[in-house]
Amino acid sequence: MTPLGTFPAVVPPDPEAEHAARTRQRSLTKPPGSLGRLEDLSVWAAGCQGTCPPRQFGRARVVVFAGDHGVTAAGVSAFPSEVTAQMVANFGAGGAAINVLAELAGAGVRVVDIAVDSEQSDDAIGAYKIRRSSGNIAVQDALTAEEAAAAVQAGRAIADEEVDAGADLLIAGEMGIGNTTPAATLIAALTGSEPVAVIGRGTGIDDAGWARKVSAIRDALHRARAAVADPLALLRVCGGADLAAMAGFLAQAAVRRTPVLLDGVVVTASALVAEQLAPGASAWWQAGHRSAEPAHTLALQQLQLEPILDLGMHLGEGSGAAVALPVLRAAVATLASMATFDEAAVAGAPDPIS
Amino acid sequence: MTPLGTFPAVVPPDPEAEHAARTRQRSLTKPPGSLGRLEDLSVWAAGCQGTCPPRQFGRARVVVFAGDHGVTAAGVSAFPSEVTAQMVANFGAGGAAINVLAELAGAGVRVVDIAVDSEQSDDAIGAYKIRRSSGNIAVQDALTAEEAAAAVQAGRAIADEEVDAGADLLIAGEMGIGNTTPAATLIAALTGSEPVAVIGRGTGIDDAGWARKVSAIRDALHRARAAVADPLALLRVCGGADLAAMAGFLAQAAVRRTPVLLDGVVVTASALVAEQLAPGASAWWQAGHRSAEPAHTLALQQLQLEPILDLGMHLGEGSGAAVALPVLRAAVATLASMATFDEAAVAGAPDPIS
Repeated sequence: MTPLGTFPAVVPPDPEAEHAARTRQRSLTKPPGSLGRLEDLSVWAAGCQGTCPPRQFGRARVVVFAGDHGVTAAGVSAFPSEVTAQMVANFGAGGAAINVLAELAGAGVRVVDIAVDSEQSDDAIGAYKIRRSSGNIAVQDALTAEEAAAAVQAGRAIADEEVDAGADLLIAGEMGIGNTTPAATLIAALTGSEPVAVIGRGTGIDDAGWARKVSAIRDALHRARAAVADPLALLRVCGGADLAAMAGFLAQAAVRRTPVLLDGVVVTASALVAEQLAPGASAWWQAGHRSAEPAHTLALQQLQLEPILDLGMHLGEGSGAAVALPVLRAAVATLASMATFDEAAVAGAPDPIS
Repeated sequence: MTPLGTFPAVVPPDPEAEHAARTRQRSLTKPPGSLGRLEDLSVWAAGCQGTCPPRQFGRARVVVFAGDHGVTAAGVSAFPSEVTAQMVANFGAGGAAINVLAELAGAGVRVVDIAVDSEQSDDAIGAYKIRRSSGNIAVQDALTAEEAAAAVQAGRAIADEEVDAGADLLIAGEMGIGNTTPAATLIAALTGSEPVAVIGRGTGIDDAGWARKVSAIRDALHRARAAVADPLALLRVCGGADLAAMAGFLAQAAVRRTPVLLDGVVVTASALVAEQLAPGASAWWQAGHRSAEPAHTLALQQLQLEPILDLGMHLGEGSGAAVALPVLRAAVATLASMATFDEAAVAGAPDPIS
């Protein structure tokens, strides 16, 4: 066991399986390159699985990290913070977007209460609860140093549980009123961006709310600048327990050689921190979609990830990644199941070398 | 029965069902608008079905229109024209991309030989065959006037068969070596574009092939300009039997109030003609994806359609639309199955009016 907050080295996806996948793509009954991004995704899937052709993902799992944020006291969200706990109940009842989208895509859903502002529950949802809400980052640290380390460790343990239970693809999602504010702060800190460049409308704030969000992020960012090189300190100062747990989850997925579809701006903010915690982890991730939140694009650029979908979604919960999962499945299916030119007795394109 | 080549008036999707869908979207447990394009697609599905919430598509059907093109004699394709018939056999054996992608998306596949350069077969695939290959549009008309009308009628009959058999969503696909050349010519004619603006690499031609394609399209376009206002004449001069059949199919789908996911540049070229044949038909269509072929974007702009996916695909066969089908299903599922704020006892966003 490595010390809290440190991760073993990440092994990159298997280059031999990737090479075999690229070679097989050229043998399939279609013009070379004509499946576009699907071809790249199929190569990535083969590399992550270390085998070509890749297997269809049989146990994809969405983990929704729920947490409240004290910064809602600054009036940065259109919704009251009670909604976080109400939505956790809605996930349990199967009524939220992620329930519907994950079922359609053939993925399971697990919800974990990391820092919802409610009493700790006895059930599995609350097993990794760190605290009630994270601190108001506009005026104080989100977490203590011990809480930040424990939250990263919680996410790591959750990833281990999922992988040990057979998950072959992970999706991180989140639910937390106010969570785009620490996410935007983390992204501003780690990409060197100004507050106004990272601030979006979240769940739908008005102009006055937007101005309050700018002010909160500016204040948090001022304190965060000194912590930029230390991921645990950054999570402590301007993150939150849910974001810290997601960072640990995403880093550990890579350590465990398990591919991940990222979702929107909050997950991707945690991914920036996860890449600091476990350099090279991003090779195990694909960006499911491009969120309408402006900070998301900055974070994706830093991670050199190109989103699969761009549908103007900005819900969170893992919803964008769940909609992208069928595209990833399509990539795997074509590489695994299409006939080759030889098998189908179809004349190939002329060899461009000859 | 209306005369050959003319269609009854298209009735638009049901505005009352669309209104009910928009209202229901605002009641679901998510911030308003946060599902982005999925919300628009769900409204469209409700309007096409005339009911809210919409039903999940239970019988989606891909029809692949196969045909050869005499213009391949001008050296406009990277593949020999024998590949069209070979790929028709590959579709029958289930080895092509569209077979794999349609199965994954829960859609059936039907292949029709409209103008493959082979003997007419006895089986169902050849029931609507118009001729062996269409004429070389660089030097002659693609079809006679009778063939153009018969091909449109064939597509119309195929749409009727599918709808009468219970299809609730149609995808048009195509297979035909050389077919991006008449497609680009039709798009140039109907959007007033220059040849160099519409010409892509098709299945992967080299620079010399590209120059030959420019030359062929310029010559065909010169003869096509006079026919721009007459869709049947345009199909005769610079189209082809397969493109004419697809135009009839797409127009008749709208007449029969059946929604369609368009695929790439060849299908969308036929869609431009179908909108001429049956004005208003495009309200029944969504663009599945944006092809890498430059003419596709011009055609989509003219039809005021925004593609769902942009994955750099350029295969045809209906493959891009098949990958988009799960996104449309996600749109229907969220509108149909998510809990409302009242049902889930979740506090909604403050009313922006109050």
